[in-house]
Amino acid sequence: MPTYKFFALYKKPEDVPAFLEHYENVHAPLARKIPGLQKLVVNRITANAFGGDAPYFLIAEMHFESKEDFDAAMASDENRATGKDAMQFAKGLITGLVAESD
Amino acid sequence: MPTYKFFALYKKPEDVPAFLEHYENVHAPLARKIPGLQKLVVNRITANAFGGDAPYFLIAEMHFESKEDFDAAMASDENRATGKDAMQFAKGLITGLVAESD
Repeated sequence: MPTYKFFALYKKPEDVPAFLEHYENVHAPLARKIPGLQKLVVNRITANAFGGDAPYFLIAEMHFESKEDFDAAMASDENRATGKDAMQFAKGLITGLVAESD
Repeated sequence: MPTYKFFALYKKPEDVPAFLEHYENVHAPLARKIPGLQKLVVNRITANAFGGDAPYFLIAEMHFESKEDFDAAMASDENRATGKDAMQFAKGLITGLVAESD
């Protein structure tokens, strides 16, 4: 059964503590309200494996059980609120990718 | 308990079928031999959520149970062989990131 995911890749913000404070206390709680969300996985990037600065600071994954759940989630008011929040606190830092996984 | 991950982000290759053929039949089997690997998750990117072309075509995740397992895996001959293969078939396409996840 494939899993449907939304990946949010965040570049490093200027103010890391303020970003994390908002992410943990406002953004992640908003995301966790999205209907059909199986889990939110937050990956903190610790290094660029091939040297130099890592192009991202944090990669979040929202997992959904089916394409139908994913589509319904994306169309929800809760997702709209989460996206609106991201466009504010992570403006210019976020890349959003849709994925299908085995 | 945190999970330790290696993310491999691949840009879209020129020859998608040849890339996938190599990925599935050569690269993924090499990666699966890396000692301590809990699982290899292959995420096929289907869309850029915010419009336009997606900056990546495929995101692979290698999961490890602990920092010790991760470090041992990275130092293994099997990882060296996997990395060498990546540097050939995915030269210029791959970004490797180390992450810690909840």
